Amino acid sequence: MSTATPSRTDGAGDTRGRLIEVAIDLFTRHSFAGTSLQMIADELGFTKAAIYHHFRTREQLLDAVIGPILDRLREVIEEAEGLRGTHARADHLLTGFAELAVSHRAVPVLAADPAVALLLRANSDWNDLIERQLALLSVDEPAPAGAVRASVVLAGIAGASGPAFDELDRDELRDQLIATGRRALGLRTPRSPARTRKEQH
Amino acid sequence: MSTATPSRTDGAGDTRGRLIEVAIDLFTRHSFAGTSLQMIADELGFTKAAIYHHFRTREQLLDAVIGPILDRLREVIEEAEGLRGTHARADHLLTGFAELAVSHRAVPVLAADPAVALLLRANSDWNDLIERQLALLSVDEPAPAGAVRASVVLAGIAGASGPAFDELDRDELRDQLIATGRRALGLRTPRSPARTRKEQH
Repeated sequence: MSTATPSRTDGAGDTRGRLIEVAIDLFTRHSFAGTSLQMIADELGFTKAAIYHHFRTREQLLDAVIGPILDRLREVIEEAEGLRGTHARADHLLTGFAELAVSHRAVPVLAADPAVALLLRANSDWNDLIERQLALLSVDEPAPAGAVRASVVLAGIAGASGPAFDELDRDELRDQLIATGRRALGLRTPRSPARTRKEQH
Repeated sequence: MSTATPSRTDGAGDTRGRLIEVAIDLFTRHSFAGTSLQMIADELGFTKAAIYHHFRTREQLLDAVIGPILDRLREVIEEAEGLRGTHARADHLLTGFAELAVSHRAVPVLAADPAVALLLRANSDWNDLIERQLALLSVDEPAPAGAVRASVVLAGIAGASGPAFDELDRDELRDQLIATGRRALGLRTPRSPARTRKEQH
């Protein structure tokens, strides 16, 4: 999410990116409520005024961290909803969700923070994405069994992509998460690579 | 965990139980770092001195909440380790873990709080319980696949027993969590009720 270029400049984009990186680190170590803008300023050697130029509140920083990931998740959900067949839809969401989880491993940790969860649940957009994910992963199972199963898979992938498997190769972790999700949901493993499922519809 | 009797007395045991109940409620709503002993005192109409009589720190209150559940989890793990056969062991842990999760639905929410997770990971006893659970649920799958799969199941059951399915009957939720766990782990559903698996060894 950092907008820093390889030849790191000290422009506004770079500062914003560093703010976001440090915020993720402190939020996941000390929790959201345990992190003040002052702590973020201290960590970077900035004044609070320098932070205020970019973010007025902790909540705005949280939005900057989570917003782009929710945008990508929404795209994955829309792609899945556009496919034919309940299995193809579920598999597309499952693989896209696992890819996002292993690419942004701090975010599930952050989203599980009760103070963050409370903010997210107050957001109708978030609730809409959750509902659509549960619907896609319910496959052909009626509620509530389908929703519980879907929920175990989403929470399980999010939880297992946290700090526990830091030493594991990113792609191997993703593939194991997808394989477990498929077993739990009763989806067959496609013969083609995970990301091309066109023949499955 | 409250020691209050139906004819609620104002004895020390009752106060301690009410403190723990209010702490769980505030920790899970405002997060651990977002809850002060003062907030707990205010919620109960107590002075801080009255709380200090029972708990000197937030951390001691957290221990009082989580300690008894870890004790029960340790028993379940020991029972599972005492069984013959990898499937019987995994199934015993799975069913015991799901039972604990639905019986103490605030606890997984609390344990996912980054500030709480940091305290738990610094506790060698906690890490030992995690390792033994992953070993039991790996069934016959070698690491790392077995550990990732086990981790998805544990995190998934913990996550799905949180506030999302508040309206669902406790036993129905538990049975769905167990059914999903068995599918993910490749365990057969025993013919007998979930809690008696003697014939499976």
